[in-house]
Amino acid sequence: MYDYHPPLRDMRFVIEHVLRAPAQWAQIPDFAEVDMSTATEVLQQAGRFTCEVLLPLNAPGDRQGCRLEGGRVCTPTGFPAAWRAYVDAGWPALSCDPHWGGQGLPRLLDVALGEMVNATNHAWNMYAGILHGAYETVKAHGSDDLRARYLPRLASGEWLSAMALTEPQSGSDLAGVRTRAEPRADGSLAVTGSKVFISGGDHDLTDNIVHLVLCRLPEAPPGTQGLSLALVPKVLPDGSRNSMTADGIEHKMGIHGSATCTMRYEGATGWLLGEPHRGLAAMFVMMNAARLAVAVQGLGHLDMAAQNARRYAAERQQFRASIAQHPAMRRTLLNGQAMAEGLRVVVYRAAMRLDEAERHPDAARRAAAAAEASILTPVLKAFGSQQGFQGASDALQVFGGYGYVAETGVEQTLRDARIAMIYEGTNEIQAIDLLQRKLLGREAETFAALLGDLRKEAEGAGDDGRPLATQIDAAQHALAMVRDRAARDAEAPLRVADDFLAGVAYLLMAWAWTASLRAAGRCTAEDLGPAERAAVARHGLDWLLPQSAVHWHRVNAALPLGRVGE
Amino acid sequence: MYDYHPPLRDMRFVIEHVLRAPAQWAQIPDFAEVDMSTATEVLQQAGRFTCEVLLPLNAPGDRQGCRLEGGRVCTPTGFPAAWRAYVDAGWPALSCDPHWGGQGLPRLLDVALGEMVNATNHAWNMYAGILHGAYETVKAHGSDDLRARYLPRLASGEWLSAMALTEPQSGSDLAGVRTRAEPRADGSLAVTGSKVFISGGDHDLTDNIVHLVLCRLPEAPPGTQGLSLALVPKVLPDGSRNSMTADGIEHKMGIHGSATCTMRYEGATGWLLGEPHRGLAAMFVMMNAARLAVAVQGLGHLDMAAQNARRYAAERQQFRASIAQHPAMRRTLLNGQAMAEGLRVVVYRAAMRLDEAERHPDAARRAAAAAEASILTPVLKAFGSQQGFQGASDALQVFGGYGYVAETGVEQTLRDARIAMIYEGTNEIQAIDLLQRKLLGREAETFAALLGDLRKEAEGAGDDGRPLATQIDAAQHALAMVRDRAARDAEAPLRVADDFLAGVAYLLMAWAWTASLRAAGRCTAEDLGPAERAAVARHGLDWLLPQSAVHWHRVNAALPLGRVGE
Repeated sequence: MYDYHPPLRDMRFVIEHVLRAPAQWAQIPDFAEVDMSTATEVLQQAGRFTCEVLLPLNAPGDRQGCRLEGGRVCTPTGFPAAWRAYVDAGWPALSCDPHWGGQGLPRLLDVALGEMVNATNHAWNMYAGILHGAYETVKAHGSDDLRARYLPRLASGEWLSAMALTEPQSGSDLAGVRTRAEPRADGSLAVTGSKVFISGGDHDLTDNIVHLVLCRLPEAPPGTQGLSLALVPKVLPDGSRNSMTADGIEHKMGIHGSATCTMRYEGATGWLLGEPHRGLAAMFVMMNAARLAVAVQGLGHLDMAAQNARRYAAERQQFRASIAQHPAMRRTLLNGQAMAEGLRVVVYRAAMRLDEAERHPDAARRAAAAAEASILTPVLKAFGSQQGFQGASDALQVFGGYGYVAETGVEQTLRDARIAMIYEGTNEIQAIDLLQRKLLGREAETFAALLGDLRKEAEGAGDDGRPLATQIDAAQHALAMVRDRAARDAEAPLRVADDFLAGVAYLLMAWAWTASLRAAGRCTAEDLGPAERAAVARHGLDWLLPQSAVHWHRVNAALPLGRVGE
Repeated sequence: MYDYHPPLRDMRFVIEHVLRAPAQWAQIPDFAEVDMSTATEVLQQAGRFTCEVLLPLNAPGDRQGCRLEGGRVCTPTGFPAAWRAYVDAGWPALSCDPHWGGQGLPRLLDVALGEMVNATNHAWNMYAGILHGAYETVKAHGSDDLRARYLPRLASGEWLSAMALTEPQSGSDLAGVRTRAEPRADGSLAVTGSKVFISGGDHDLTDNIVHLVLCRLPEAPPGTQGLSLALVPKVLPDGSRNSMTADGIEHKMGIHGSATCTMRYEGATGWLLGEPHRGLAAMFVMMNAARLAVAVQGLGHLDMAAQNARRYAAERQQFRASIAQHPAMRRTLLNGQAMAEGLRVVVYRAAMRLDEAERHPDAARRAAAAAEASILTPVLKAFGSQQGFQGASDALQVFGGYGYVAETGVEQTLRDARIAMIYEGTNEIQAIDLLQRKLLGREAETFAALLGDLRKEAEGAGDDGRPLATQIDAAQHALAMVRDRAARDAEAPLRVADDFLAGVAYLLMAWAWTASLRAAGRCTAEDLGPAERAAVARHGLDWLLPQSAVHWHRVNAALPLGRVGE
């Protein structure tokens, strides 16, 4: 019953018609050989892989979960073989640098691949999803030696990776990290400490697992300014096991097939990545990649849930009609569709900015694109994960009682999707990052430039551009209000950061729906169903966008916030 | 870690100071002996029972679930003993008629009991929760014979009940019910058919289970006008087993300790409840009781999740302070508190209306109270269940990664709470019931009277009453718009019914917060913390109420709604 139809037409519409990615590829020499037909072929193959290999493992993996046996983690039946098939097909290397064995394709296609992988098997994707961030971190911060030793195997997926940051006393606040790293005479480090919530800290998908561990060198300054990042492999170059142990795995609400490990490092051998005490900067390379990946997870869940709800509703008869024809259900279905299609546009835009940031020949363009991506990332992480969860719950409602039953599948999507609002920085941390650190900080001009760019879309759309223009005005006004208030009341931005992020998210969605509407208007490819796409985009502008008003209202109202009792 | 502090002070504040229930009891001869000290004593004992007996079974019941063994359902360890303890303490009979062995206490106290039972063990409450509705149905529609045979044992809880409506092809739309009932010479019926999603269809809590089965007599008219209701006991008066079998139990997202059965009736012996072909009317006695019980479930979940989040946040240190002091978390905690306290006021108001409807000496007052309850019920069922789920998700976010882990408990609340948005009529069905059937139908004047009553609160509150007055104006305006539009466009009310219900819910919450604010102002019982209550009520008005604007906007905007593709 719970099936997946890879949204290839939707993807093609966004990539080719809304975002016009081929025009970008033409400007980037590295992508000289990429065109829409390559892209379509890649996405078709990816869609086939996810349906044939990953989807069949999703529900069984949820039921079976992971086991810790004699200090070794066993993943659900079929997970290791699926990883080997994924590696053999070259998927991990899709957007990696050909110098390190990658295929050098746009990140955009990697993101589209990630959407389908996550839609069909979030738990399995937990192993795959972290890889690109680890690759980027080692590439950016590893010594020549470490790069030579680890990059080809990370790019190919021969080895997987884990990101070891959180400790029991230190979650959102990394200042409390206590794991120690003692330099040895040979230039290596002896890493000792405990980490919790380490996704894929141990598993049986690959022989080696490359841990990136946040730790402190001796005499490091306190707080986050004293953190360093160490590369600590499960298997050392001489083939011996490193001194790290998975002490336990968590029993979670969802993603049961993903091993969430409690890790103990006891003088484990590692090597510094980047400068001493600059671990946070190195970590953020990985973290930003992971945050966009979380947005992609939200998109995958949302689309998976919404498309299944549409199919079920079209078949389920009540009151002498399919429930898809009843207004309340029709609206829920259109909400899901509009949200998924809008979110896809913005997520793919962010991916294109990363491609530009990494590969555009012009340095100024690279810098501007990187800056825009740094604004889009927290918005998409928070909003995308929230919509993935909300969309799953909405879809479950369409299934009614059948949705609450495990066999149907949508309740697993809901359970799996919920974690995305928490990990890789909670959604509240994203909101603070966006408003406090970036828009009120060093990225004020980037935001102004982004709004300027979006305003062009509004102006080009004529009457249809008015909702978007209103959002842009609202965002500018709200930011000015917050900035003004922050000077007198340092806590003020923190009180409204979540609403501010939500407001910006709806603004971006308004842009996405407006751009989709225009793209549908000029799209002559009838097989892409431009008329229906225009209707869905209008539904987003009419029915969903009004939610933004509440968020801007709360930002502007400068409400006080009482103390909590208990 | 997941603990329950019965909200006795909150309950007392609402019952004594906001709703001034003792003044109502004084008007009702049946309650001549009830006063605030009786009520407090009952609630204290109820709180103790739920903490000592039900809470310890909640998480183990979730892990263990129900089993179907040889056609018999086994509930989790401890569930049957807890039921016997509940019966021995007289809890099922709390608000039942003394004539049938009940204690004759106000329904209001039964609802407060239900809140605590549900907060501590929703799955177990599934067995208890249906009982009162079954008792009411048999009392209102049973023959003298049936009443004599079944009412004392239902009131005492010696026997439990099940409500058998849904069939695979017939969920929200009961017109499709096919179960047949053939009259026999002795006046009994032979009931044959299949039912799905029957909560407590079989279990080991009581020897007998009284099924109320929706069915069709021979030559019944088609549709819902041809439905009858039959009382079909698991054990017949002669002690033999009736011909009914639990063929399966569902594997669900939550409430694992509640047996959701697929039932097969094969010429099972039953007796008609009420008139032939008038089963829907009889069923609605039960259904309305069940719907208010679902609102109470939402309240229980919301308060349970919110109070645990407050305690956790007060202890969890990040960024050199408890996370309860960080604005984003503080706001989430206050949201939960304000929502729970406001919802409790409205739910308890509905319970008081039911008391008035059942026991007030003046017939006109009884009729008016029943009418108001019929409006409050669908709003509270939908909004309460939604807030229970949303509140659990918000609380989970406060727990962060620990919230996603089973051991913490909040993820079970989230999973359990989700069903309440579906069963006893989906939330979308509630919205149609409210707007189409009641406000645009026979209860237009009741709604006007309710708004008139709420306006008195707004006027009495001076400046503090403005948000409430605005809501009342908005509701009147919106209803006029919808009524006007409905004349030309029959589908129009269905498109906005969900938003209309949400708008009315926020209006009721505005009344609750306003009334709480005033009550706090005049409350001299310092142990009830009136100052903090006032702050929480203001938080509701300031931070939560603005959400209503989106709902009224969508109702008023008369938006079109496209067709769904796929």
